[in-house]
Amino acid sequence: MNDSKTEPEELRSIDLNVDAGEQADSSRMESERDLLSRVSSANIACGYHAGNAQVMRRAVEWCAELGVAVGAHPGLPDPQGFGRRELAVTARELEADTIYQIGALHAFATAAGVPLVHVKPHGALYHMASRRRELAEAIVRAAQAVDPKLAIVGPAGSELLNAASEAGLRVIEEGFVDRAYLADGSLAPRSLDGAVHSSEREAIEQALSIVERGTVKALDGGTAAVRAQTLCLHGDTPGAASFAAALNRSLRERGYLIRSPGTR
Amino acid sequence: MNDSKTEPEELRSIDLNVDAGEQADSSRMESERDLLSRVSSANIACGYHAGNAQVMRRAVEWCAELGVAVGAHPGLPDPQGFGRRELAVTARELEADTIYQIGALHAFATAAGVPLVHVKPHGALYHMASRRRELAEAIVRAAQAVDPKLAIVGPAGSELLNAASEAGLRVIEEGFVDRAYLADGSLAPRSLDGAVHSSEREAIEQALSIVERGTVKALDGGTAAVRAQTLCLHGDTPGAASFAAALNRSLRERGYLIRSPGTR
Amino acid sequence: MNDSKTEPEELRSIDLNVDAGEQADSSRMESERDLLSRVSSANIACGYHAGNAQVMRRAVEWCAELGVAVGAHPGLPDPQGFGRRELAVTARELEADTIYQIGALHAFATAAGVPLVHVKPHGALYHMASRRRELAEAIVRAAQAVDPKLAIVGPAGSELLNAASEAGLRVIEEGFVDRAYLADGSLAPRSLDGAVHSSEREAIEQALSIVERGTVKALDGGTAAVRAQTLCLHGDTPGAASFAAALNRSLRERGYLIRSPGTR
Amino acid sequence: MNDSKTEPEELRSIDLNVDAGEQADSSRMESERDLLSRVSSANIACGYHAGNAQVMRRAVEWCAELGVAVGAHPGLPDPQGFGRRELAVTARELEADTIYQIGALHAFATAAGVPLVHVKPHGALYHMASRRRELAEAIVRAAQAVDPKLAIVGPAGSELLNAASEAGLRVIEEGFVDRAYLADGSLAPRSLDGAVHSSEREAIEQALSIVERGTVKALDGGTAAVRAQTLCLHGDTPGAASFAAALNRSLRERGYLIRSPGTR
Repeated sequence: MNDSKTEPEELRSIDLNVDAGEQADSSRMESERDLLSRVSSANIACGYHAGNAQVMRRAVEWCAELGVAVGAHPGLPDPQGFGRRELAVTARELEADTIYQIGALHAFATAAGVPLVHVKPHGALYHMASRRRELAEAIVRAAQAVDPKLAIVGPAGSELLNAASEAGLRVIEEGFVDRAYLADGSLAPRSLDGAVHSSEREAIEQALSIVERGTVKALDGGTAAVRAQTLCLHGDTPGAASFAAALNRSLRERGYLIRSPGTR
Repeated sequence: MNDSKTEPEELRSIDLNVDAGEQADSSRMESERDLLSRVSSANIACGYHAGNAQVMRRAVEWCAELGVAVGAHPGLPDPQGFGRRELAVTARELEADTIYQIGALHAFATAAGVPLVHVKPHGALYHMASRRRELAEAIVRAAQAVDPKLAIVGPAGSELLNAASEAGLRVIEEGFVDRAYLADGSLAPRSLDGAVHSSEREAIEQALSIVERGTVKALDGGTAAVRAQTLCLHGDTPGAASFAAALNRSLRERGYLIRSPGTR
Repeated sequence: MNDSKTEPEELRSIDLNVDAGEQADSSRMESERDLLSRVSSANIACGYHAGNAQVMRRAVEWCAELGVAVGAHPGLPDPQGFGRRELAVTARELEADTIYQIGALHAFATAAGVPLVHVKPHGALYHMASRRRELAEAIVRAAQAVDPKLAIVGPAGSELLNAASEAGLRVIEEGFVDRAYLADGSLAPRSLDGAVHSSEREAIEQALSIVERGTVKALDGGTAAVRAQTLCLHGDTPGAASFAAALNRSLRERGYLIRSPGTR
Repeated sequence: MNDSKTEPEELRSIDLNVDAGEQADSSRMESERDLLSRVSSANIACGYHAGNAQVMRRAVEWCAELGVAVGAHPGLPDPQGFGRRELAVTARELEADTIYQIGALHAFATAAGVPLVHVKPHGALYHMASRRRELAEAIVRAAQAVDPKLAIVGPAGSELLNAASEAGLRVIEEGFVDRAYLADGSLAPRSLDGAVHSSEREAIEQALSIVERGTVKALDGGTAAVRAQTLCLHGDTPGAASFAAALNRSLRERGYLIRSPGTR
């Protein structure tokens, strides 16, 4: 992906990803289809932190219909905490948990006639796997065991992507549009003023800055390098679908294709 | 399978199957490996009525090591009732539930380098799918969607096997060795005296009668036809492993190979 | 309650009840407080078909603050099906499941300094307990074991209320405002045209007819007797809060107090 | 409890406690009744890390029949990890989780006509609440909210018992008979040789040493002070019931009554 600078048309594409299938009940998913129609990749919950078989099938079917790349969004087995709380899993436990979750979603993708494209860990697991090599490797081993063509989504420079690269898996670097960065390239802690961009305009500016320059204005001054082939949108806020539509439009107006690097 | 009478060596093989991976905790599985070493097929719980990722992986690894055919044992989402209580699922719900469960186990089989060979529904679902065509078809569609080479295990003449055959899936007919049959070929209800064979000797005699003659002595008089390529052992009784060893020995003494028809 | 006709002021009160605490995540409950402010009783999910400890506490705290009577809303252990699918529980199993659920909610009520007022079974369990005496008795025994002052909510004439009355528990008869009745007093099956009142106006008219005359216009002609001390509102439809406000206002304009009979 | 030295008869009693109700299925509890008959207190799982309504009721009924003090054994919401893995719960979350679990078990005790006597956190939560004051206080607040007469079980000197004492709850100090201690009074880490007493004789000697002298031989030399009114037995090892019987006999031969301090 990094040598794409020599291929002009590749320069002009970007992926938008959103979490999907997090509902407890497939009858409560009305708003999700609209959101999915604005993005190019979906990270579908696999029944651990959220979702269930009915919801997963529905989300996969919509992705198939809309041409959205289907990804697994494995999480910690903590539905009460929505996978947001760290749990002291061992690497061996995590490997089995991840095989289970990817395997279940892979089956729905197969049933819908579409490939499973990527794996992006959810919530606390995303952060744990970004920092701790043995957990990163457990996720990578699980993905590789189920399907060696899977891509791994994570922050640029993270242990997760390092482990994936070394194992020969494709990696997709992810940037955030509604969170401020510090000059060292890390996300600003939510406790800092300005850590979350509250206006659509700010978030769209940050998105354009990431895709056009690979940098963002840092919250602590100067600029931060943010290398990303995919941008993460949050689907669980009230204006999510309208923001996704606005960002999608802004990017296309600048000449970007909205598509998953995993499907190139 | 039914025309195997012209192939003498085929006549002399029988499958022994047992449920596996039903523990809540992989540290409580010590006794399971011994039982698995006496059979040729395992039906592994997939996390709905019992089991979880750690337990599933362990059970699959033992099967791989021991040359036991790995099968999925999907159940109803009722862990409290161990999948033994009927639940009013729709065919569409059941299809998704079964894709999820088979998909998860398929991934563990792939990770262990062995094929997923068969699917046998568990508990109340076994009975529901034997009688109700639309549920049988839902399970068959799910199996076919994940892997069209899967075989379906069920009672001879059941809607489950009818649906599987018509869909072009291989079928494996199952007989029971510790349950008495009625003359019409159905299992005697547990409420009847003598419905459960309490002695090892009786159960082994019934097993030999099924494999050698395709009939058993009926509880209500006469004989019942019981066509079976696999015999179901129950693993959760105290003497399960020693009974499995005794049955295994008796069959081999008569010249039978103990092996899964799904792996021929 | 039925001899209240001699007490004029009692004639002029009615309870409005709504299901609460059905979210998977206490951070997704914003809209619930508004709805609770329009009713006099809440049926709080207890973790079986929906809800969890965090959500239950939040719902109970809001009820305490708003003066809404707290009730337990026990369901079948089927979160995937939201408790809407019949499950073949035995009376003995149901009794334990109901003790568990009422006990957990009772503790939150105690912690919040308010009484637990009533028990209303949820979904498929409501219907099963209305028709099947042994299940009705199991729920009544469970309620009585935890707190003999609990009232039981159900349809007038149901096995559930019969069992409760005979056991000496108070009963609260429930009517539905957005569902049409047949002349025999039963709810019209959803498959019939007109079974669900789609307009606010129709639903409010039915509510007023129930409280003022104890009858409604039957879908199959004539009138149906509907005896009710509480009216059930559905909280999971888009306009739920605004409808609750409109109904609340209409009843108060006619001089009715909106309050739980369980707290008189 | 500590000034009991002036009351000779009090000197001569000790509590034996064991975890109970950890099965997934009440039909698999046969061995539990025997174990319960050898102890004076049971810590019953409440459905989070293990157990369910059927199992809880059965365990409580046996305790009632055998005169064993019923205690709640709340755990982290991690059934896959059997509550043995640390989870990053907040104090506020833990308080609600503990109210839920104690409340549910309290209801079964009420239904069986016996008091709920004590609360002992399970697994990782036991260790987290022993060390972290805000979590200790959350458990204490939960216990107090449900029933201010509840006693709290934990290690002498722990934050858990400090918080309980300061809140005015009774405390029960716990010692371990099959684990070696270090001279500072802490349990020897399992990674050290000799950290677990593998022989019955060693464990019984340690038990007698704790009750008679309040000290044990430390693994790292010298003696460790171990103040305990209750001794923890582990029920999930093969020889658990026979060891419990042997310890029970040894203590009674020395003149000790086996009984819960919570019921004095």
